[in-house]
Amino acid sequence: VITSRDNRWFRRVRDALREHDAEIVIEGPKAVRDALAAGWNPIAVLCTEPALRRLELETPERRLYVLARELFREIADTKTSQGVIGLFERPLADRVRFFDRRDSIFVALDGVQDPGNAGTVVRLAAAFDAAGVIALPGCADLFSPKAVRASAGAILTVPVTGMTVEQLLETGLDLYAAAAGATRHDLPAGNAILILGSEGSGVSSPLRQRATAVSVATTRNVESLNVAAAAAILLWRSFCTRTGRE
Amino acid sequence: VITSRDNRWFRRVRDALREHDAEIVIEGPKAVRDALAAGWNPIAVLCTEPALRRLELETPERRLYVLARELFREIADTKTSQGVIGLFERPLADRVRFFDRRDSIFVALDGVQDPGNAGTVVRLAAAFDAAGVIALPGCADLFSPKAVRASAGAILTVPVTGMTVEQLLETGLDLYAAAAGATRHDLPAGNAILILGSEGSGVSSPLRQRATAVSVATTRNVESLNVAAAAAILLWRSFCTRTGRE
Repeated sequence: VITSRDNRWFRRVRDALREHDAEIVIEGPKAVRDALAAGWNPIAVLCTEPALRRLELETPERRLYVLARELFREIADTKTSQGVIGLFERPLADRVRFFDRRDSIFVALDGVQDPGNAGTVVRLAAAFDAAGVIALPGCADLFSPKAVRASAGAILTVPVTGMTVEQLLETGLDLYAAAAGATRHDLPAGNAILILGSEGSGVSSPLRQRATAVSVATTRNVESLNVAAAAAILLWRSFCTRTGRE
Repeated sequence: VITSRDNRWFRRVRDALREHDAEIVIEGPKAVRDALAAGWNPIAVLCTEPALRRLELETPERRLYVLARELFREIADTKTSQGVIGLFERPLADRVRFFDRRDSIFVALDGVQDPGNAGTVVRLAAAFDAAGVIALPGCADLFSPKAVRASAGAILTVPVTGMTVEQLLETGLDLYAAAAGATRHDLPAGNAILILGSEGSGVSSPLRQRATAVSVATTRNVESLNVAAAAAILLWRSFCTRTGRE
C-alpha cells in the first residue's frame, strides 16, 4: 500500500490531472474498464484497498497499485470517486483517416473554453452519430478530467482531434456556424462541419465569413442558448435527417 | 470603503452564497440592473471602487456599499466578476396563479442535483417559452449562485416554485417523464408538465407511474443524454408545435 506523496505513480497522476498533455486520467471502475476495452494504453491503475477487492479489471497486475485512502482522496474527484483511477497514454487521433467519413457531420469547437460544455458536445456527437469532434485553438482540452467526465464515456469512441483554422478550411467541407438569430435552422445530413463558438463572442471572424450561419429558433426572451443546448438541437436534427427518425 | 470581515453586509452576502435561503446573491452590473428592473427587492449592492466609478445603478444610494478589493474577492465569482454584487430578497412565487397558463408546458425537476443543469433548464424555459419551472424535493436550489449564473438572467423572468410530488399530482395536468428508450418522442404544445429526473436514477417511481414516458431518439452508443440536452430538444419541439416555427 502506497502511503507517500513522493510515490512516482501518485505524482504522475497528480501531474496528469493538471497538465493532461501526454497522459490522461480516467476515473471510476467502469470508465477504466471501458478505456481498456476501447484499446487505450494503460500506464498505471491506482485504487484503494476496498476498491481492489471489488475490482475485476483486465489490467496486467504489474500495473495495478494500491494507494492509502488519504492519498487517493487527494487525486480523486469527490463526486464520482469509486476508488479507481487509471492513467493512460493520450490517444493519438488518426489524422489521415479523420475526414474519411462523409455521410455525417463533424463538429468543430472554436474557443469553447468550458470543459464541461466541450465534453458534453463529445457526448452529443456519440448520441447523434456525428463523424468526429475538432478542437480548434483556444478550445478546452477534450482530454481534461472535467471534459472526460462530461463526455460520459463518449471520449473513448468518438474520433477527436486538434486542428488549426487553416487546416479546417483546407478540408473543403461545407461550413456551418452556430449564430443566434440566423434565418437558417437546419443542417445537412453529412459532408459538413458545424462550428460552435464561445458563449461570449461566438464563432471567430475568419471562420464566420466562410460559413453559413445556422441557429435554433427561440423566443426573444434570451440572447442566446448555452452552446451545448444549441449543439443538442442542431445535431439531433441532422441525425433525424440522416436516419429518417424523429 | 469597507475593509473588515466583520462588516455586516460582507457577512450577509457571504452567508447568502452558502445558504441562499431568504436572501439571494446576484453578480455583475448587468445582472444586478436586470434584477432591479424585474422588480426584485434589493437589500444591498456591494461593489469595488473601480466598479463604483463605472456604475450607473438605479439603487437607492443608501444601499450601495464600497468594499476593499481584497474583501470583495472573497465573495466574488472569479470567472465572471466585474466588481458588483447585489443582495436581494428571495422572490416569492405566486402559487395561486402559477398554473394559470395552460397554452404552454411546465417543467418539473425531480432530483436534478447539479445547479448548473437546473439553471440551464430555467434558461431553456425562457428560450422556448415554457410556462414555468417546478423544483421538486431533492432538486438543486434554483436560486443558488451556480444555478442563477447558468440561467443567464432567465431566473428573473421565468416563473419558478418549489412543490411536493403530491402537489404536482393534484394539478391534474398531463404528466410526461423524460426516460431513455421511450417510444414517444414529442410533447404536446400545452396543458402538460415535463418531468426531468436525475442522471443516475431518472424520474422517481411514483411520478414515473403516473406519467407518459418520452425520450429523444439517439444512437445506441450512449446510455442517456445529459438532462439539459434532453430538455433542450423536448422543449424546443414543444415550442415549434405551439408556434409553427421550425
